[in-house]
Amino acid sequence: MNQLTNLSPADLSAQHEQDAKDLTRILPASTKVYIQGSRPDIQVPMRQIALTDTPTGLGGEKNPPVMVYDTSGVYTDPEVAIDLNKGLPHVRQAWIEERQDTDVLDTLSSSFGQERLKDIRTADIRFAHIQKPRRAKTGQNVTQMHYAKKGMITPEMEYIAIRENQRQRDEVDMRQHAGQNFGAKNLTEITPEFVRQEVAAGRAIIPANINHPEIEPMIIGRNFLVKINANIGNSALGSSIDEEVSKMTWATRWGADTIMDLSTGKNIHETREWIIRNSPVPIGTVPIYQALEKVDGVAEDLTWEIFKDTLIEQAEQGVDYFTIHAGVLLRYVPLTANRLTGIVSRGGSIMAQWCLAHHEENFLYTHFDEICEIMKAYDVSFSLGDGLRPGCIQDANDEAQFGELRTLGELTHRAWEHDVQVMIEGPGHVPMHMIKENMDLQLEVCKEAPFYTLGPLTTDIAPGYDHITSAIGAAMIGWYGTAMLCYVTPKEHLGLPNKKDVKDGIITYKIAAHAADLAKGHPGAQVRDNALSKARFEFRWDDQFNLSLDPDTARSMHDETLPKEAHKSAHFCSMCGPKFCSMKITQNVRNYAQNQETAKDFNPSTEEVEQGLKSMKQAYHDNGQKLYQKV
Amino acid sequence: MNQLTNLSPADLSAQHEQDAKDLTRILPASTKVYIQGSRPDIQVPMRQIALTDTPTGLGGEKNPPVMVYDTSGVYTDPEVAIDLNKGLPHVRQAWIEERQDTDVLDTLSSSFGQERLKDIRTADIRFAHIQKPRRAKTGQNVTQMHYAKKGMITPEMEYIAIRENQRQRDEVDMRQHAGQNFGAKNLTEITPEFVRQEVAAGRAIIPANINHPEIEPMIIGRNFLVKINANIGNSALGSSIDEEVSKMTWATRWGADTIMDLSTGKNIHETREWIIRNSPVPIGTVPIYQALEKVDGVAEDLTWEIFKDTLIEQAEQGVDYFTIHAGVLLRYVPLTANRLTGIVSRGGSIMAQWCLAHHEENFLYTHFDEICEIMKAYDVSFSLGDGLRPGCIQDANDEAQFGELRTLGELTHRAWEHDVQVMIEGPGHVPMHMIKENMDLQLEVCKEAPFYTLGPLTTDIAPGYDHITSAIGAAMIGWYGTAMLCYVTPKEHLGLPNKKDVKDGIITYKIAAHAADLAKGHPGAQVRDNALSKARFEFRWDDQFNLSLDPDTARSMHDETLPKEAHKSAHFCSMCGPKFCSMKITQNVRNYAQNQETAKDFNPSTEEVEQGLKSMKQAYHDNGQKLYQKV
Repeated sequence: MNQLTNLSPADLSAQHEQDAKDLTRILPASTKVYIQGSRPDIQVPMRQIALTDTPTGLGGEKNPPVMVYDTSGVYTDPEVAIDLNKGLPHVRQAWIEERQDTDVLDTLSSSFGQERLKDIRTADIRFAHIQKPRRAKTGQNVTQMHYAKKGMITPEMEYIAIRENQRQRDEVDMRQHAGQNFGAKNLTEITPEFVRQEVAAGRAIIPANINHPEIEPMIIGRNFLVKINANIGNSALGSSIDEEVSKMTWATRWGADTIMDLSTGKNIHETREWIIRNSPVPIGTVPIYQALEKVDGVAEDLTWEIFKDTLIEQAEQGVDYFTIHAGVLLRYVPLTANRLTGIVSRGGSIMAQWCLAHHEENFLYTHFDEICEIMKAYDVSFSLGDGLRPGCIQDANDEAQFGELRTLGELTHRAWEHDVQVMIEGPGHVPMHMIKENMDLQLEVCKEAPFYTLGPLTTDIAPGYDHITSAIGAAMIGWYGTAMLCYVTPKEHLGLPNKKDVKDGIITYKIAAHAADLAKGHPGAQVRDNALSKARFEFRWDDQFNLSLDPDTARSMHDETLPKEAHKSAHFCSMCGPKFCSMKITQNVRNYAQNQETAKDFNPSTEEVEQGLKSMKQAYHDNGQKLYQKV
Repeated sequence: MNQLTNLSPADLSAQHEQDAKDLTRILPASTKVYIQGSRPDIQVPMRQIALTDTPTGLGGEKNPPVMVYDTSGVYTDPEVAIDLNKGLPHVRQAWIEERQDTDVLDTLSSSFGQERLKDIRTADIRFAHIQKPRRAKTGQNVTQMHYAKKGMITPEMEYIAIRENQRQRDEVDMRQHAGQNFGAKNLTEITPEFVRQEVAAGRAIIPANINHPEIEPMIIGRNFLVKINANIGNSALGSSIDEEVSKMTWATRWGADTIMDLSTGKNIHETREWIIRNSPVPIGTVPIYQALEKVDGVAEDLTWEIFKDTLIEQAEQGVDYFTIHAGVLLRYVPLTANRLTGIVSRGGSIMAQWCLAHHEENFLYTHFDEICEIMKAYDVSFSLGDGLRPGCIQDANDEAQFGELRTLGELTHRAWEHDVQVMIEGPGHVPMHMIKENMDLQLEVCKEAPFYTLGPLTTDIAPGYDHITSAIGAAMIGWYGTAMLCYVTPKEHLGLPNKKDVKDGIITYKIAAHAADLAKGHPGAQVRDNALSKARFEFRWDDQFNLSLDPDTARSMHDETLPKEAHKSAHFCSMCGPKFCSMKITQNVRNYAQNQETAKDFNPSTEEVEQGLKSMKQAYHDNGQKLYQKV
């Protein structure tokens, strides 16, 4: 792949080595554990974080390990040898085969796909071990929704139920506040049957193309953990296959539940193959981008035939969901004329341009049923695109945006008639007080199909910090019921994100998604907060770092001012120093309550108070003047 | 000051030079403008950002400059020579003098203050031009609330009215969404009389010690722009006077409306003097920290006398507001015994320790009226401390927290009897769905006194990113009615923030405050968003950067992938490249609507549609296939 970078072979090799280390390094105190399902080939990965004991002076108890959801795949399994050239293990192979409803194809169905295979110019960047693709047998429908509606609980559904339960041990601190989930269903125990019901009803989707057997199955739905997506992909102005694969594994390491490959530059087909073969998470694309590349960027030269071939090409590679802007109708386009920032969606603007050039209705809309026929043959899910989302605060919640949303509602219904899985894309730029209206309307017109928003950004004035402007909106809309949040990096509006930007975007969106889970009262969500706060209170610094979303950064920030290992048990940090640390001081208060009746029963007479105070004063001094003491 | 740093004199000198450049550099395209009030010595600073013309092909219109609120003081006024050794100009001197209700004191009233003045060990770190302090004449009350209740509109109030109006020109795009402000009053035009009413009612405060004449007056209240505070200050483990003054000017440069000096380390008194003399914004402190230093860190050795002397010492230096934990009552302390993280407030834990050691009621509570007598003699405002705020999600909204809040309500009433200005501090760590309850209770029990919260953080699991976990909560509680948001930096829970952390915290909190203003529908708030988005849509890259909260970062992020000057007029960036830029494509759509009847009236018959489509198709091709065209 040397010709695609500017580095010398020696430098490239050194960088690969460093990347490989970064990507496979096990997070601190973490073990990959697998929870087995009803059959030996259902092995659900979790990350188990081990904790140290509470210091003796503070109680000395053992602290049970905490299990967290793990998207990093076998990259963080020391038992598995990674070879990007060969791709990941085929987790789902047996499950797909035993359903016996698919054929293995000897040749690719897409003419473009066939051309690329024979093109000697791309020979040395091609993934070497491409499998023959599968397709549904004639008359068969292979979507998870189809199986769910037939009453089948697939292995994927069972895997997901185990995964969503996050299997904590009994000893962990499961306390949490009752949430406010606006009518969602957040069950204490998620069963495979519940998963089936949600998928059958269309309230959740399992993006799982039969040609992507490498994925560790996951679910997107309001009644499950809020998920996040990370976007990667090259552009004409940057990046290589190497870098994109590296971004993908980096993103899943830090917590991306799905990845979208939004490449618009060179070798989109080959880049995608490498990504899919090595991705443990579902991959989404926007097929119109590649279709546009095929017509050299001239939107009006797009045709249904080219687009159809692109869908098949990508489906046979294994793309798990397609963003399709079938809601950008000709009649909505003029509604954007008075907008401040017009149409900001790439796909939306491409389709708008096509509509005007041909003065015909959007071909994605007019050929929608044929698209469904393709999707159901591979189990590709729809992500119905919000081509008319608002690109600035002023344009929020306007006619164009909501008109499109209503059309997406109509299309959801049509897709479900084909048992094709659907999620709905959402905004954008929306001020806080106008966010809930989006959620309420989407639930109503799309009949609770999962919502998948980009933020929204709650102000326009901070390019360079749009991961933050949008985290505010994303957390809120996740709380209100959005199922997946598409991340925004600090580079939004400015340029293509690099690895640091990708990580910043992911950690920020893990924060937003988790804040939403807490507010919804999702059972078990507060376990990690409780464990980390206890570690903080007890000055178990390493435990605090290890439980955090980004242990490396937490540790290095602490070490900037207190680097020595001895400081990791220090009962203070450089913020306040030893005299002023409130945590240190308040370790002592507990004795006061332990040595008297419970605080709630504490309602003494004045004399009792006086007497009690005197004896407590004496006891306090006798006990060495500690506020909290071990019982 | 060399002995307080580790740098050699030469390196220190070089760093000072660089710091001075950083601190006084004018932001790009910006001019300091002063708006005069009803008298020549009322000169209200704003920053005016000049914009370039829209490109000819897109309309060629002039874009009026945008005025933004400016906290950076004369540091960014090229007409004013800065000398940190001399301090800032005395903006308010005449206004204080002409009220003729104060005496100039020949000696400091505080015995500690007198000792420090004579201590030769601190001679070379002492600010050289300390003014003689003022104090109210006997029987006089010099608070802005007192003046307001008497019906007086002070020059400070007029200054503030002008400042809050942000005096945009008529030509700017003033469009904005109607907000949802939960019953606040967001007026289109803020008059000095309105300011007076708000201060008289206690709904707003003007922190303005008569001994801090250098400040550019500002207001904190629900019916005004949401404000932010930045914390600086050394600890026993770090920082020097130099660094702290530098952080203060750095913080005000980036938008801090007030600064709290939370020093707990060496030379607290001298450090504070340098900061106040050079600060254009109000300064807050937590006097109990210095009082604790005076008793060598032994909380139970604190006495009312030591604390009283500290209040006077700090008031005579010019501190504008004191955080006082008078709500940490003995009976609330046991309610924290079952908490996960006890008492996380430094001041709160110090007072809790004192209460238990003495088994007496908190002396800040028992001596509250005497504290008021001191405050009203200098016009120091209360920031009634939330010593029992929750330090983790699990502890949110518990009995201890709300018990203290109710007591703060009682104390608000008592302070108002003295006409002492009051704001109320708030949490902490609170999941999103439990935030509004805090605001509603505070409005009720504190009779609409301004609320001043620390975040809140909406999850505990991301040390290293707590500026983000808390920005979510801060934006929401600002929307609900909180008047000032205390920033949180990435270093929260980990160590003392450096300059980069301070900036990250400030930009993040400017985002939260502005998102709140937009959601409240604060008149004029959306001007900046509109101007920036228009610049973005028209590829006026420099304008987009210059309008943003952090032009330096926006520009450098863009330049990472497209550095050349020619790219600053490029109609794309590296995110998508020239072919795929949606902004570029959709510049053409406007012609479609311009050349036909308005979109709303567009309701043709099928034949009309066919005919229209044919002629539009022809027109589109004739016009060079552009989606939007100039009218």
